[in-house]
Amino acid sequence: MSTATRHLRQIEVGWGDCDPAGIVFYPNFYRWFDACSHALLIARGLSHRELAERFGIIGCGLIDTGARFTAPARFDDVLEAESQIGKLTSRTFTVEHVFRRGDTQICSGHEVRGCFAADQNAPGGIKAIALPDELRAALQ
Amino acid sequence: MSTATRHLRQIEVGWGDCDPAGIVFYPNFYRWFDACSHALLIARGLSHRELAERFGIIGCGLIDTGARFTAPARFDDVLEAESQIGKLTSRTFTVEHVFRRGDTQICSGHEVRGCFAADQNAPGGIKAIALPDELRAALQ
Amino acid sequence: MSTATRHLRQIEVGWGDCDPAGIVFYPNFYRWFDACSHALLIARGLSHRELAERFGIIGCGLIDTGARFTAPARFDDVLEAESQIGKLTSRTFTVEHVFRRGDTQICSGHEVRGCFAADQNAPGGIKAIALPDELRAALQ
Amino acid sequence: MSTATRHLRQIEVGWGDCDPAGIVFYPNFYRWFDACSHALLIARGLSHRELAERFGIIGCGLIDTGARFTAPARFDDVLEAESQIGKLTSRTFTVEHVFRRGDTQICSGHEVRGCFAADQNAPGGIKAIALPDELRAALQ
Repeated sequence: MSTATRHLRQIEVGWGDCDPAGIVFYPNFYRWFDACSHALLIARGLSHRELAERFGIIGCGLIDTGARFTAPARFDDVLEAESQIGKLTSRTFTVEHVFRRGDTQICSGHEVRGCFAADQNAPGGIKAIALPDELRAALQ
Repeated sequence: MSTATRHLRQIEVGWGDCDPAGIVFYPNFYRWFDACSHALLIARGLSHRELAERFGIIGCGLIDTGARFTAPARFDDVLEAESQIGKLTSRTFTVEHVFRRGDTQICSGHEVRGCFAADQNAPGGIKAIALPDELRAALQ
Repeated sequence: MSTATRHLRQIEVGWGDCDPAGIVFYPNFYRWFDACSHALLIARGLSHRELAERFGIIGCGLIDTGARFTAPARFDDVLEAESQIGKLTSRTFTVEHVFRRGDTQICSGHEVRGCFAADQNAPGGIKAIALPDELRAALQ
Repeated sequence: MSTATRHLRQIEVGWGDCDPAGIVFYPNFYRWFDACSHALLIARGLSHRELAERFGIIGCGLIDTGARFTAPARFDDVLEAESQIGKLTSRTFTVEHVFRRGDTQICSGHEVRGCFAADQNAPGGIKAIALPDELRAALQ
């Protein structure tokens, strides 16, 4: 995958992001994954607002996520986040994330996302729909 | 697995746990997974304080986590969380979580955890150690 | 003020609610204030959904908040939160909160809230409106 | 107060920072206040680590905080945060924050902070101490 398709972002670890053991409370990594995915989409001209307006969806929601933690991060660390589109299917796209502090990998993870539209008849009021062609094209 | 080994917990979804799409912002599920795991350990007499004092560890940290989201949860939903110990190795234990709202499964997930001790020479200042026998016994 | 007008709620302090100093990261107290206010409104038959449907508002938003911290709270503490309606004006209501652990006061705080309706012409797309009479009555 | 004494910081509002009304869930403003205060201290050579090592304190904890919200902020807004030291007493210092989006003020707030040291005999295990002279000097 070419450099152009990767999205880089700096993450400053805050005091409140860390737990009594002094290391990042892990759900915050997922919060940062989400921010990276939004930034990646925005960088391709696909802000949440545009997705909603063009495709009538309520958002690119999560279907499956996961992360491996290889070294701890602490308050005041600056992490480099690298995100890119992985597997793309008719109904889902995967965003892959790697976080590093200098040469040390801190964690890696993925988010499988789909497009969700409001549907009063669906359980929970939303249903997954096929990815719009324009979105698929922007993600390739 | 017998009922006795499962840990149940109710989760009230707060206003601030939800995003502009009106559904739970997914990192919060991991926050709740963590709370469920701590509650499960405490129910077995293994609070963080006791783990630290008895075994000289700084905590049961995360190695790998993941979750699948099957239906959305919204503000004011009350979720039933069911957590149990899954795979147990010499160095790790897995906590498996399922969240439901009534009969509807909202998400399922796992946390692979290990014991970490302070070590000035290790990268990041902590290293994984083998699970203490007493902890292994309590988890079986 | 009579007992009936106070709303009580238990707060379990989670591992991830605490910072590297081992005490609650203070913005979480405001998160709990918000949860207490929503619970107080729901106890008076005024869930967010009902407020939105009956009065056409997008929510009871914040105008001013504050808190004093008198003793630290730590992981696994169970706090008793007591919330009640304070000052009521034509456009605002104040919710007052006190958190205690046993006999020890942990913090006290307030939230001045108003009703906000969508308004395309207002800066930010929302404007404060007078409290609906029915809401005022329910708060007295 | 001269420009040099103000600390500026950009805040990107994330998707997960906003609630179902589409605006920032207000406790996040306090999270950002805290980050601004830490950054201000670090800019004056007073990281948490240095404070702890030089003065034997566990941190600059909160005594009183407050905020006024004047206009809503939404996902993808970039806020400019301006923070400066306000009132300084023998035992406390106040950090004052103003957040703006372009010319629009979003919120203003304050944090009264003190120095806390571990004390097994104090309720909660910590006690407030007088500000070390070196800290007072750095804050002036």
